[in-house]
Amino acid sequence: MNGAESLVRTLVDSEVDVCFTNPGTSEMHFVAALDRVPGMRCVLGLFEGVATGAADGYYRMSGRPAATLLHLGPGLANGLANLHNARRAGSGIVNIVGDHATYHQQYDAPLASDCAGVARPMSHWVHSSASAQAVAADGATAVQVARTAPGQIATLILPADTAWNEAKAAAPALPVPARPEVDSSAVDAAARLLLADGPNALLLGGVALRAESLEIAGRIAAKTGCRLLAENMNARLQRGAGRVQVQRIPYPVEQAVAMLADLRGLVQVGSKPPVGFFAYPDKPSILTPDDCTLTVMGTAADDLHAALEALAEAVGAGSGVAPAHTAELARPQIPGGALTPESVGLVLAALMPEQAIIVDEAVTTGRGFHAPTAVAAPHEWLSSRGGAIGYCLPCATGAAVACPDRKVIALSGDGSAMYTVQSLWTMARESLDVLVLVFANRGYQILRGELKGVGVADPGPNAVRMLTVDQPVLDFVALASGQGIAAERVTDVDGLVAAMRRGLGERGPRLIEVVLP
Amino acid sequence: MNGAESLVRTLVDSEVDVCFTNPGTSEMHFVAALDRVPGMRCVLGLFEGVATGAADGYYRMSGRPAATLLHLGPGLANGLANLHNARRAGSGIVNIVGDHATYHQQYDAPLASDCAGVARPMSHWVHSSASAQAVAADGATAVQVARTAPGQIATLILPADTAWNEAKAAAPALPVPARPEVDSSAVDAAARLLLADGPNALLLGGVALRAESLEIAGRIAAKTGCRLLAENMNARLQRGAGRVQVQRIPYPVEQAVAMLADLRGLVQVGSKPPVGFFAYPDKPSILTPDDCTLTVMGTAADDLHAALEALAEAVGAGSGVAPAHTAELARPQIPGGALTPESVGLVLAALMPEQAIIVDEAVTTGRGFHAPTAVAAPHEWLSSRGGAIGYCLPCATGAAVACPDRKVIALSGDGSAMYTVQSLWTMARESLDVLVLVFANRGYQILRGELKGVGVADPGPNAVRMLTVDQPVLDFVALASGQGIAAERVTDVDGLVAAMRRGLGERGPRLIEVVLP
Repeated sequence: MNGAESLVRTLVDSEVDVCFTNPGTSEMHFVAALDRVPGMRCVLGLFEGVATGAADGYYRMSGRPAATLLHLGPGLANGLANLHNARRAGSGIVNIVGDHATYHQQYDAPLASDCAGVARPMSHWVHSSASAQAVAADGATAVQVARTAPGQIATLILPADTAWNEAKAAAPALPVPARPEVDSSAVDAAARLLLADGPNALLLGGVALRAESLEIAGRIAAKTGCRLLAENMNARLQRGAGRVQVQRIPYPVEQAVAMLADLRGLVQVGSKPPVGFFAYPDKPSILTPDDCTLTVMGTAADDLHAALEALAEAVGAGSGVAPAHTAELARPQIPGGALTPESVGLVLAALMPEQAIIVDEAVTTGRGFHAPTAVAAPHEWLSSRGGAIGYCLPCATGAAVACPDRKVIALSGDGSAMYTVQSLWTMARESLDVLVLVFANRGYQILRGELKGVGVADPGPNAVRMLTVDQPVLDFVALASGQGIAAERVTDVDGLVAAMRRGLGERGPRLIEVVLP
Repeated sequence: MNGAESLVRTLVDSEVDVCFTNPGTSEMHFVAALDRVPGMRCVLGLFEGVATGAADGYYRMSGRPAATLLHLGPGLANGLANLHNARRAGSGIVNIVGDHATYHQQYDAPLASDCAGVARPMSHWVHSSASAQAVAADGATAVQVARTAPGQIATLILPADTAWNEAKAAAPALPVPARPEVDSSAVDAAARLLLADGPNALLLGGVALRAESLEIAGRIAAKTGCRLLAENMNARLQRGAGRVQVQRIPYPVEQAVAMLADLRGLVQVGSKPPVGFFAYPDKPSILTPDDCTLTVMGTAADDLHAALEALAEAVGAGSGVAPAHTAELARPQIPGGALTPESVGLVLAALMPEQAIIVDEAVTTGRGFHAPTAVAAPHEWLSSRGGAIGYCLPCATGAAVACPDRKVIALSGDGSAMYTVQSLWTMARESLDVLVLVFANRGYQILRGELKGVGVADPGPNAVRMLTVDQPVLDFVALASGQGIAAERVTDVDGLVAAMRRGLGERGPRLIEVVLP
């Protein structure tokens, strides 16, 4: 077997059996090996950002890394923005990046670039295989790195000759490192804080946002009166009926500061300290008040579920305590009339099926969705952890590959959808069960607020022209059908309801362009 | 004035008056300044690769750098692949990359990343402004770097507070460094080589491929009998009737080696030594024979025109000598029948107007275009120097902004077109005079050849599935009309001729999907 085959075998043996790819010449041996090694599902994307974003979504929903297969430095570069999002989300990914043959690199051929340099800003681990003999062991190490909690970005550069030269064998899977236990002193500190005068809060992140951990947090809240908070954007939040609810810290700095203004203590459980998404003139970077005590009970890499159990015990919130903040199912009445962020949120809450996977990049339109859906059927809510635009459609693609039996609902702004619009083709090709809603407000609406936020009260015509996407208007029905996806446009609530019922009533990809006034 | 305004004024004063952008929050002050500073044309792209590729095309045709305005590390990352192409093409670009405010960076907010690290692999110069007071001078330096021959990538990182804090004034334009003169000893060495027994050749690159330099090369060829060669892909080649022709070295290694097999001497004039685009098992990296003498008469940065004049004088090929290899106009008969790479090439040669700007990423389909168009009306031929796919539509966008009075014809494969398909929207928004031909062979056709090239004779179904783009078929008429561009599909030569006549007969963007069997 050659190096490429030894790598594919190693990946499959290490339980990495999905590969999102956009390959080129330097990856041809890996591609050819797919027909000699059973068990690797290869999913083609027409742009590399689709592949990396799909690997992110796949990890979030499966808990297992996918591989990506990318073409030299520029192909990797095209995938970097969604690797940034994945890194921030704690998603494990094994990037395989083909490069020029080792002996060819000295000639500085047109596609030569500093692959490792391109990889480094968005990778936890970067390694270039030295020989075909080394490739299998390098691949096993890459998987181990990717599977290290909370999930890491491992980039393995594969010079073409290390793929085509003769190798010995696949490498055995390496053990997956266990999540470190949280130190008992950190649990004790958290308990003391929560038992002191409040208001206090748990700020939950990472796997602490799964239902079984939230249930413990709900017991702790019932016992101590603490609030349950989450950051604004989370990799995977389990919510809806029957689950303990958390409040997300709002994106606008003023609203966030107001929400946290009276806090005396905050316990971070897999979350970062609350800071502004951006800085603005004369607004604070830190969102908690100066006299609020912050304590860290575990990072995103730690065993947060066990830490919460220990904390519950420490505050006397054992399994006999009924959790606070448990959501009861309350599907809203469907409103009539015009499409607004609020009416769309109600329709979504009313119609979303049980165990739906919501992938949210609705930006401004989506800010109204959170409240009504909190009491909808139980579901998952995936947000962009890294804030790099263009994560939604790829992430939905990967989530659908990971969970073929669940409906994925992608909520995207029109501006956001265009960054990685090629995802629609992969959804069609793989018959993925994704309902895409594109909210067409025909502009980078968020930036109008941001202009004000940075102190520009009255933007002139040139500035406004940089924030609007209305000349020409994008036709997402055409953009979807051009990639093999059934699509329709709706302009009122009745139309949206009918279109969503059609989309939810069948399997397979479908797009609805939701035109907002 | 604030730092952002001081920067926009400095750019305009330094003759950087076009900005291709996809801005975000951290760039809002720059955007706002556009309404206070006259003279900066800002062109919006819906994806950053459109902006950087357009800046490349703009430089190739105007000789002046454009600015790009990009949103933090991930926005820059999305533009990297076309920066790679621009770097390889010797195109000068001033990237302005907004970043978090200096004091906010310590908080590691979601969009924080190592901007400088992302920039470095594709930049000649990277600098982060330390204060609003420093921004103007940093901007002037960035322009000077970008204008240093042959054209360089300068990346200026602009923390948000350096944009919004108070600055003093714009900075004056810095002098543009002159191209270094080629040493007379290098000219003498070239002359000796060309006057020795042949066959010998000039391998011309960079600005040596402009008509006035080619004319001198033609005289040298007339006098010495040397061949005139160019690399396979060139930033800007002036060709067609009345111009001295160069032979491009073919992409396939076997053909390139055969073409160069009998060469005894090769003079590089702004070109690199001929090497394979990729390495392949059992094929050479170096394309010239072992006993061929290579000598360098100037790099791409040097004053190549003066060097050629000196060389002409040294070999006795003064202005009285008639240049060899001058093309005479020979518009071909338009064939009938089926669409093939050959028949498309003949149609193109017959119909392309004088001074057309051809932007070529037709990959496999385009290999037949070169011969018939060599004797077409005088035109420019722009190719991807870096080989990163997705350069064509953005480059055509920028070329059209630079040359509003000339017809741009973009030739793209279907696979290639999808990487930066968002370019079509910018063409529509700016009413750019671009005729786009997308060659729909429904696959990464080149990779089938490459599979064979690396030794995979009989790819299996999984491999083939990674190289085909036929399930579902992409509908480029829908993808174009969805972005406001008139489009049609043709399936035979008559249809292509009629569609091209329509497209060439009017101003503004138009797309033709050319379906190849």
